[in-house]
Amino acid sequence: MTKPLILVTNDDGINAPGIRTLIEVMKEIGDIIVVAPDSPQSGMGHAITINSTLHSSRITPKTADVIEHSCSGTPADCVKLAINELMPRRPDLCVSGINHGSNSSINVIYSGTMSAAIEAGIEGVPAIGFSLLDYRWNANFKESKEFIKKITLNALKNGIPKGIVLNVNIPSVKKSEIKGIKVCRQAKAFWDEEFDKRKNPLGQEYYWLTGKFVNKDKGEDTDEWALNQNYISIVPVKFDLTAHHAIQDLNEWNFK
Amino acid sequence: MTKPLILVTNDDGINAPGIRTLIEVMKEIGDIIVVAPDSPQSGMGHAITINSTLHSSRITPKTADVIEHSCSGTPADCVKLAINELMPRRPDLCVSGINHGSNSSINVIYSGTMSAAIEAGIEGVPAIGFSLLDYRWNANFKESKEFIKKITLNALKNGIPKGIVLNVNIPSVKKSEIKGIKVCRQAKAFWDEEFDKRKNPLGQEYYWLTGKFVNKDKGEDTDEWALNQNYISIVPVKFDLTAHHAIQDLNEWNFK
Repeated sequence: MTKPLILVTNDDGINAPGIRTLIEVMKEIGDIIVVAPDSPQSGMGHAITINSTLHSSRITPKTADVIEHSCSGTPADCVKLAINELMPRRPDLCVSGINHGSNSSINVIYSGTMSAAIEAGIEGVPAIGFSLLDYRWNANFKESKEFIKKITLNALKNGIPKGIVLNVNIPSVKKSEIKGIKVCRQAKAFWDEEFDKRKNPLGQEYYWLTGKFVNKDKGEDTDEWALNQNYISIVPVKFDLTAHHAIQDLNEWNFK
Repeated sequence: MTKPLILVTNDDGINAPGIRTLIEVMKEIGDIIVVAPDSPQSGMGHAITINSTLHSSRITPKTADVIEHSCSGTPADCVKLAINELMPRRPDLCVSGINHGSNSSINVIYSGTMSAAIEAGIEGVPAIGFSLLDYRWNANFKESKEFIKKITLNALKNGIPKGIVLNVNIPSVKKSEIKGIKVCRQAKAFWDEEFDKRKNPLGQEYYWLTGKFVNKDKGEDTDEWALNQNYISIVPVKFDLTAHHAIQDLNEWNFK
């Protein structure tokens, strides 16, 4: 059986410990090519580079067992460039991460990690984003390896439903403390923002964005609930954003 | 009756002709405050600024009838800053645009215009993104004014359903040629990318992202169909990305 060809990317940059762990896991599963940003791109959402140029460099020798390219663009740029230019054929799977920090609930919208997975999904490539609930550079990614392998093998075997990508979040606890894997819906939570207003040395005001994550969704079928109970959460995410149920309501508006 | 307070923003920058037209329309409807990027932000998706500072300047005098702030951040940053710092109270509505160019179909994912509207929606503020199907700086926005006013008044009167923002696209034709307004679903279309590979003066390769928009969705209930028939399209867009129908499929995977 030929091995699956797997594209590995992330948003924390090609040298982040999270992607290094993901590469280790994927090497056990298939042939892999890494195309990842040359610098951290957190919070980039689904940004793409349209008014500027993109650069990419192969950073491993041609004979290396893993071919790695760093790219000047956003995570979505990396996936576009990988699929359309850098890979010898369309990948069988794209995995993104492991993100340093949560992408559960509404965070999926702001996430560069998930935008890479969603971009792959749009291009018809099955895709999974993985995130660990620890934003630190030296977070302990090792404990999650076995689960990431299990989820990836399932995705390859069963196929990810069309029009969907998977958003996987992993509690930052010991392997033995993880209770299992739960398929969930995105919790209806939000960020209560505060701006920290300061003055620069010239006396001009500037802001730092800060905030508190607020979850008032008490459902026990949400990713937040699962993660709080030490389950790994998988949310199937779609990129057709149409709110079909609202079409009828809007058809009652009067545009005459 | 007190006038509604309306936040106006965009992604082409505060000096773009599109937002100037939108300001003119909104002045007929309510009290408005403009908070928009100080430079073009097209293709920024739902990017937010988390590893850097944000600057904003009021660019109109305190006594002006329209208060305008330019902001160093992305469209989503502008909305966060406006709602949490710059506005005297929560706005009754946020409008974004008029974008220079289409945000129909899958383009909603890459759109800074729509990310501003979605950010407002996440914060519980009713929101509409407006886009004209002409990417040129000197596009003719005047023909769309009457329709934008009609849609905005409907939104204020009827209320936009919770958890939803409106994605409005407008054909770039004369007012008399517009056939009407249609509520639609997002067409299942995509970009067939090509990278234009070049060499810089030092002999290093770089890329420009180019591509062709491909729509194989023949449905007559899509935004693409409506726009091709010279209708204005309204797609209700949601930011809970959960693909609820896929949860059951995934529950059949074997994670033991």
